Amino acid sequence: MTGAVELTEIWRGPMAESRHSGHAVICDARGEIVEAWGSPETAVLPRSSAKMIQALPLVESGAADARGLNTERLALACASHNGAMIHTSRVKAWLADLGMGDDDFRCGPQMPDDREARYALIRAFQEPCQVHNNCSGKHAGFLTLAAHLGAGPDYVAPDHPVQRCVRAAFEEVTGEDSPGFGIDGCSAPNFITTVHGMARAMAAFAAAEEGAGARQSAMVRLWQAMVTHPDLVAGEGRACTELMRAAREPVALKTGAEGFFAAIVPQRKLGIALKITDGATRAAECTIAALLVRLGVLEAEHPATRRFLNAPIRNRRGIETGRIVPAKGLL
Amino acid sequence: MTGAVELTEIWRGPMAESRHSGHAVICDARGEIVEAWGSPETAVLPRSSAKMIQALPLVESGAADARGLNTERLALACASHNGAMIHTSRVKAWLADLGMGDDDFRCGPQMPDDREARYALIRAFQEPCQVHNNCSGKHAGFLTLAAHLGAGPDYVAPDHPVQRCVRAAFEEVTGEDSPGFGIDGCSAPNFITTVHGMARAMAAFAAAEEGAGARQSAMVRLWQAMVTHPDLVAGEGRACTELMRAAREPVALKTGAEGFFAAIVPQRKLGIALKITDGATRAAECTIAALLVRLGVLEAEHPATRRFLNAPIRNRRGIETGRIVPAKGLL
Repeated sequence: MTGAVELTEIWRGPMAESRHSGHAVICDARGEIVEAWGSPETAVLPRSSAKMIQALPLVESGAADARGLNTERLALACASHNGAMIHTSRVKAWLADLGMGDDDFRCGPQMPDDREARYALIRAFQEPCQVHNNCSGKHAGFLTLAAHLGAGPDYVAPDHPVQRCVRAAFEEVTGEDSPGFGIDGCSAPNFITTVHGMARAMAAFAAAEEGAGARQSAMVRLWQAMVTHPDLVAGEGRACTELMRAAREPVALKTGAEGFFAAIVPQRKLGIALKITDGATRAAECTIAALLVRLGVLEAEHPATRRFLNAPIRNRRGIETGRIVPAKGLL
Repeated sequence: MTGAVELTEIWRGPMAESRHSGHAVICDARGEIVEAWGSPETAVLPRSSAKMIQALPLVESGAADARGLNTERLALACASHNGAMIHTSRVKAWLADLGMGDDDFRCGPQMPDDREARYALIRAFQEPCQVHNNCSGKHAGFLTLAAHLGAGPDYVAPDHPVQRCVRAAFEEVTGEDSPGFGIDGCSAPNFITTVHGMARAMAAFAAAEEGAGARQSAMVRLWQAMVTHPDLVAGEGRACTELMRAAREPVALKTGAEGFFAAIVPQRKLGIALKITDGATRAAECTIAALLVRLGVLEAEHPATRRFLNAPIRNRRGIETGRIVPAKGLL
């Protein structure tokens, strides 16, 4: 990943203790670069930032309507949730409506990030289930599509009809042939594209119009579901949830593992994608907040913004020991 | 931090998904650089990798002997422990011997990283105490020295006699005037040096001889205490503990926050210090393991080494999705 530029600095006392570099692209509706930092053509795995794309076949195929999925379930299909009761209760109900159970998942169990849910499991001497996995909504979407297609149970296999649909949609909206994939934390294939390709895809979502065909209608429904239910897309205190709530205008935000972040900005028909080279979430969150402030979508001094942009670092006694700041020229 | 070089790659599927750069220095007994990667003169905060240095005044002053500190307590003074019972029970006993209690600490409370200890607290609906803080052994050492000096209770204040002693020792062993400090996670000042300065300090520990004055005797006692009690320096599964146990010869290893690592290699009279620019622990662990293999201190294929060097990344279902590998030319 040559050509990365510094995007975030971690200050402690009189010095920048750590530094994060990466690549960021803002794209317009034609897929052209409006602004970029680093090398837009760097190959990346967008990880969970691709969930809105992975959910496209669910909607386009008619599976979502055939099963009567409401906006909550569409938001969960795009979510990396923190396993709170608001998430797991809804995914469980969705599974039950499919006539399925936790064992039908292929995402694996994960201890919830949500403290209340985590402590409840520990106190009950229980292990987490697959529904607690942050990707369980995406997987409920995969199961819904698999059932609709009459396809087999191993829906995360790269040659399964569900993943073949996902790959086709992914290549179409990124505008690039994917050279391959990695296996994600939830066992689904995650297809390779470029930072530019992901920004182009996000801009396509942003510019999509209801009624302009199945693809564009699906895009509108998905970003609108995310914007309608920011609490379902991530969880309390999380960047996606807090920044979507704080924004002056609708914006669909989606984090991804290893320092990825993507944004759909419908009123401006813009898409954003960024990758922190070293995979740090703190830098991805600071950078997306900075770019949204740069565009005027977020206020720099909004309390939610300040949790991620120029965020204080506090130690075990609550003393401010440092700050997470955007690199010069980013704001 | 210009001049950083790539030290670790995070592979997933067919590509390096993330990359970590930084600086590493191997020093000899004269403080000369034997080998280096990146820019040795980069200013750094060594964080907890400086704990052996921060413990020097405790021993040199006679405070450790006056209080009869055994090798377990000296190892704990240099530790970033994970709050397991083996750590907290010993620190509590040490505090009691000083006639002090948890409230005398200035490190702040921290939920233990040790799963058993953490789950026990959660199940008992208890909050962690300051003794659970990973630095509580260091702070017990500070309290011991403060009592010995007849100094006041705010032992983490930069102008407190304890911290003035620490700063003097730090500047002497690094061979550099420190331009300042940051406040650490445990509220103690953490003094700035260079990667070269920290490697020089570690080499001084490595070359120290018992009986050659208070400084050198203290150095020998501290690294020997660490090597004698690797489980007290960090904890089960942690890099410091596991790699010290796996080494073919005595080596004192100490991690630090924000991607720092330091090593004392007494039989070769070598010291190592490294800083990952972005602060990633996974890269610091992979890099120190690689350098120890390079020197012949560790075996590349030892199971403990393989937990950090070319370590498999497994997903929620236990599937190997990637690997943490050292950059070319490091081994």
